[in-house]
Amino acid sequence: MSEENNFRFLKACRGEPVDATPVWFMRQAGRYMKAYRDLKEKHTFLEMCKTPELATEVTLQPVNALNIDAAIIFADILLPLEPMGTGLEFIVGDGPSIPRPVRDAKAVENLRPVNAEEQLGFVGDAIRMVRKEISGKVPLIGFAGAPFTLSSYMVEGGKSREFKITKMMMFETPETWALLMDKVCATLIDYLKMQVKAGAQALQIFDSWVGCLSPHDYTKYVLPYTKRVIDGLKECGVPVINFSTGTSTMLPTVAQAGGDVISFDWRISLDDAWKQIGYDQPIQGNLDPVLLFAPLPVIKERVHEIMRQADGRPGHIFNLGHGILQHTPVDHVKAVCDMVHEYNHA
Amino acid sequence: MSEENNFRFLKACRGEPVDATPVWFMRQAGRYMKAYRDLKEKHTFLEMCKTPELATEVTLQPVNALNIDAAIIFADILLPLEPMGTGLEFIVGDGPSIPRPVRDAKAVENLRPVNAEEQLGFVGDAIRMVRKEISGKVPLIGFAGAPFTLSSYMVEGGKSREFKITKMMMFETPETWALLMDKVCATLIDYLKMQVKAGAQALQIFDSWVGCLSPHDYTKYVLPYTKRVIDGLKECGVPVINFSTGTSTMLPTVAQAGGDVISFDWRISLDDAWKQIGYDQPIQGNLDPVLLFAPLPVIKERVHEIMRQADGRPGHIFNLGHGILQHTPVDHVKAVCDMVHEYNHA
Repeated sequence: MSEENNFRFLKACRGEPVDATPVWFMRQAGRYMKAYRDLKEKHTFLEMCKTPELATEVTLQPVNALNIDAAIIFADILLPLEPMGTGLEFIVGDGPSIPRPVRDAKAVENLRPVNAEEQLGFVGDAIRMVRKEISGKVPLIGFAGAPFTLSSYMVEGGKSREFKITKMMMFETPETWALLMDKVCATLIDYLKMQVKAGAQALQIFDSWVGCLSPHDYTKYVLPYTKRVIDGLKECGVPVINFSTGTSTMLPTVAQAGGDVISFDWRISLDDAWKQIGYDQPIQGNLDPVLLFAPLPVIKERVHEIMRQADGRPGHIFNLGHGILQHTPVDHVKAVCDMVHEYNHA
Repeated sequence: MSEENNFRFLKACRGEPVDATPVWFMRQAGRYMKAYRDLKEKHTFLEMCKTPELATEVTLQPVNALNIDAAIIFADILLPLEPMGTGLEFIVGDGPSIPRPVRDAKAVENLRPVNAEEQLGFVGDAIRMVRKEISGKVPLIGFAGAPFTLSSYMVEGGKSREFKITKMMMFETPETWALLMDKVCATLIDYLKMQVKAGAQALQIFDSWVGCLSPHDYTKYVLPYTKRVIDGLKECGVPVINFSTGTSTMLPTVAQAGGDVISFDWRISLDDAWKQIGYDQPIQGNLDPVLLFAPLPVIKERVHEIMRQADGRPGHIFNLGHGILQHTPVDHVKAVCDMVHEYNHA
């Protein structure tokens, strides 16, 4: 086994004992950091994603500023939408907007197959550049949106509260939904394999919005597709993190979709969650991102609570339940890294 | 026991056997109905809430149009905010806006005590008028926001996604949060008692947004206050429904706050939820409101699934997991009433 495989983070993904609990943060590169905001003044978000030099710079910002145990490539879960043909825009202050939403069979049929190597090659290039910089230091995580979350953006045309149009496609035209998910799965598998080929040492699948579904609908309309993507990545030989939010009531079902690591949010206590899905299943979580704004003694109390619940069992990666929020104090994020590393399970 | 106490809905609240499962819908009076939209063209939302004749008319619209087992007084959970002194506006297309949000100790101290009889008497008047119209037909439910949901609106100043300012008040200045919750509790108990005095035969406490919290924070910052309100209503002698959404992971904790009926959303299957909180606890739920847009055969399948899970046990009130959405087809709502009433548990 190469030296690279001995990183704390990768060992925890495999459920092996570690010298200290590994920690990283979703959206650890982002607007809460001054270095990021400075770069953002000169470039649009999509420019930063598509220019490997810039994506590399942003990816490395938290590696340099924080004592984290993994880097995650700077990109956006919606990048595969452009080559699929829906268009993709980021409207300042309003988030993503999909100019040609996919709402009927014809629109789904018209979606284009993606060649990730050619059409999303800039992500691969950034991964290669980052690996050169951090080799031997921390491992690099690649990622993509999960089939549901990606499809819901394509159908809704942007952010949504109720996910009505998405659910209606499931309920009214399940065959159209199935075709959409088929196409998204094919794109995702190709895209994620490309990332591993470029050097990603682990992968995270983000199902950020799937918590709007009932367990019934998750099982029927989502689980088979998330499972297909995760199964399709097995041959890559890197750990896959199955992340979702708002799904704490159905974690054992979510775990059925697979994943070397199950990542869940703060709406369930870590010990309840781990018990439900089994202590032999590595997990990731689960601090409320808002807690990073709290005074340090409050943060420490809550970080220690999570660590106490993890109880020193192998297979815990410390993370938030969702991404770092804008305006989060950088020194608080840094402090959490230290609190996690220094926590003594004895 | 008076004849009024024999309503299916009230019997189910008490866990008594019924001839058919009672059904009503949160936001059963609302924009999805043409009669409501017609009235709304001539009056603002707040005018409709504050004019007992109009509130009565709106309350009766679903009673006349649907075969429901309970009416709920037309009002808004935010009405107590005006007499407390924060102001309250409804901006078309954008929801509620609180002109003077409550974000520090001074603002909380300045909140005014409310005399519900005098300052929210229009709700009592509407209740009296509705009771005259529906006496002997269906029982009338009164309601209010739960302490957390009401306080979160006061702190955030409107709708929120992250509830950052609210959580920060808890984490940074817990004594300010406690004082705010104290004041809100006092207002709510007075307001709800007034509703019962006016004729409300049951009460529902809406904790619509409390699902943003971890079980830890719910237990520490919310549970004691919700419990205080529910305990404070015991002397009224009417059943109290403890409603929340996004809390399916901590239903046994939510149930500790009390309530004759626990109402939960679609993010957990009804049988899982009922097992967790105990079959002797009456429950309400739990269809996804988006399902009302689905084709009737799909709706029927899902209504029957819920009914099958309830398994004919006494103490189930059929409802959605949250309010009826705009544009919901009225005939689908009507059809659900019939599906529930006609379901044969044998």
